[in-house]
Amino acid sequence: MSTKQDEELAQERLIDLAAEFYDQFDSGDIPAMEIPTRTKTNIVFDEDSEVWVYGDRTSTRSANSVRGARKLLKAAYTIEFLVDQLEEDRSSTLRELYYLSESWDNKEAQFSDQDESNQLVEDLEIVSKVTREDFHMRPEESGATLMGPLELREQTRRGERAIHCQEDVGEGGYQIPNNPDTIDFLDHDIDFVLCVETGGMRDRLIENGFDDMYNCLIVHLKGQPARATRRITKRLHDELSVPVVVFTDGDPWSYRIYGSVAYGSIKSAHLSEYLATPEARFIGIQPTDIVEYELPTDPLADSDVNALESELEDPRFQSEYWTEQIELQLDIEKKAEQQSLASRGLDFVTETYLPERLDDMGVI
Amino acid sequence: MSTKQDEELAQERLIDLAAEFYDQFDSGDIPAMEIPTRTKTNIVFDEDSEVWVYGDRTSTRSANSVRGARKLLKAAYTIEFLVDQLEEDRSSTLRELYYLSESWDNKEAQFSDQDESNQLVEDLEIVSKVTREDFHMRPEESGATLMGPLELREQTRRGERAIHCQEDVGEGGYQIPNNPDTIDFLDHDIDFVLCVETGGMRDRLIENGFDDMYNCLIVHLKGQPARATRRITKRLHDELSVPVVVFTDGDPWSYRIYGSVAYGSIKSAHLSEYLATPEARFIGIQPTDIVEYELPTDPLADSDVNALESELEDPRFQSEYWTEQIELQLDIEKKAEQQSLASRGLDFVTETYLPERLDDMGVI
Repeated sequence: MSTKQDEELAQERLIDLAAEFYDQFDSGDIPAMEIPTRTKTNIVFDEDSEVWVYGDRTSTRSANSVRGARKLLKAAYTIEFLVDQLEEDRSSTLRELYYLSESWDNKEAQFSDQDESNQLVEDLEIVSKVTREDFHMRPEESGATLMGPLELREQTRRGERAIHCQEDVGEGGYQIPNNPDTIDFLDHDIDFVLCVETGGMRDRLIENGFDDMYNCLIVHLKGQPARATRRITKRLHDELSVPVVVFTDGDPWSYRIYGSVAYGSIKSAHLSEYLATPEARFIGIQPTDIVEYELPTDPLADSDVNALESELEDPRFQSEYWTEQIELQLDIEKKAEQQSLASRGLDFVTETYLPERLDDMGVI
Repeated sequence: MSTKQDEELAQERLIDLAAEFYDQFDSGDIPAMEIPTRTKTNIVFDEDSEVWVYGDRTSTRSANSVRGARKLLKAAYTIEFLVDQLEEDRSSTLRELYYLSESWDNKEAQFSDQDESNQLVEDLEIVSKVTREDFHMRPEESGATLMGPLELREQTRRGERAIHCQEDVGEGGYQIPNNPDTIDFLDHDIDFVLCVETGGMRDRLIENGFDDMYNCLIVHLKGQPARATRRITKRLHDELSVPVVVFTDGDPWSYRIYGSVAYGSIKSAHLSEYLATPEARFIGIQPTDIVEYELPTDPLADSDVNALESELEDPRFQSEYWTEQIELQLDIEKKAEQQSLASRGLDFVTETYLPERLDDMGVI
């Protein structure tokens, strides 16, 4: 739950950062900010939390150059904006922050493009150890949904809403808010969480009543999942102690979707403990499924082959399971979509494929 | 409301089509299907309904070539599938139809790619005069939402749900289902409908309480709006007799978004009367706003200039208003996003820009 305390902590941490600049000036030092190097070679597996986090290598943003000084000036202005925003209990999007900088009195502090303001907010997350959500910075949109036997309470600006994610929603399901830490789980009858990549498959599972039949909560990932979607998945796993399985297309891009749910992403490795669900397991489409169920396939494109080869090198995919699956896929040179299961009939996925896989995995 | 009657009508019309092939065979004619030519040069303004519809030019799909015969064979198989689906009260996605064809006994009837099956379903809509929704064909996903003083009842597979689109939903709003004709409007306090292109702006309006303050229903278009979003917008306008305004970025692609809400699209001109809201008006961002409010801008790219020039030629944009706006934009060579209004502060859009524009337009 995002509480008043979280917001006060965020404010404190931000002010501490600004205070640090002040102290550096005061003691005659050149102000600087140290942050972990954010590249593939600087992520390490944390044995305790079982997620990938940044390693020991760091980069320094220092005011010893005009460019560096400008970066710290922008950081100072952004800190002031965020502290005020929290004070007033407002929020804003990353894009609004970029445009808003045009209203700042010091032209040197204005952002030249949105990449710059996005990156700065990420830097501030890392050094302050507070998440963007607690700064009240919203993403552009997420739009993912839940459907299943879960009753929750969302704290909205208009008061509390108690919502059952089957009985109180339409066929579209419950829309996950930008900051899912405003949600409390009240009651549930969930045996497992099933994260689904595509809307077409999500709708198929709902139409076939799969959530009802197997007491599962269906989380629609909508392709590469937004932070809000990954966060609520992690909370469902941790707070309700239920297994999480991820159901995607059978291609390297979809394995990355699974990876971002389970292991965290390189870009947001500072948030892995907040966003990643290392216990999440991949249900399919597996390359072995393509062979076993004789699914309709497309040939691998060159970009697919490159992505698979890059995954073989990726520390997050260094397991016997993934090595076997990826090597099989490179061997058969084929990929398949989740909806290709429809070639065996519209009920095949809910009557045969998922029950068999869930049984194999010991989930049901 | 999509009713049992609509579904029976859809079945009847489909069977009529198949019967026509039968009669053609029976009387010794080569089976054929005639459909309107679907190009920019064959759309005309229908004075009665005030929307753009297909003109008189038609193309014929005839079995007098192997290619044409194969197309009609595929149509026959698809008709059978759709009739069965309606019989069983099932539904499916366009993508599932494509994959499902792999299970058909006749290899010649299987689709070679999804464009082919999509196009065939559109052809069937046109000749049968029944919408895809009444065939129970779902789109891949839409995901757009409503927020505002509206109480509705959605007929779901799990029974009826009565939902108030402010009081019974979280901050994410009410998720529009794939077929919004399953919705009845029960009660409302809406003075106007405000369709919004981007998620960031939608969230800004909700956070600032704009829907509450002005009794407006906020429809999130999510970029180019899905059919479900356009359909519900039209129904809100027609059934509740409230004005509809469309709020997008200020660039040629966004004018097309407005155009698809108001005038219908070339691709789905056979559905204009079902989907288009000709009374919908464009609120902005207008090129004149860019000048008047001195908004932060980006230069027009070559593709923007081409798109603007193509709009000057487009029959749907042949009004004094659009000619002036587009020519001004070509003149200033700039475009601006909705969120650029944040350069005047986070409340500028709700306290100044929208009230001024709505007042100018006579909506408030």
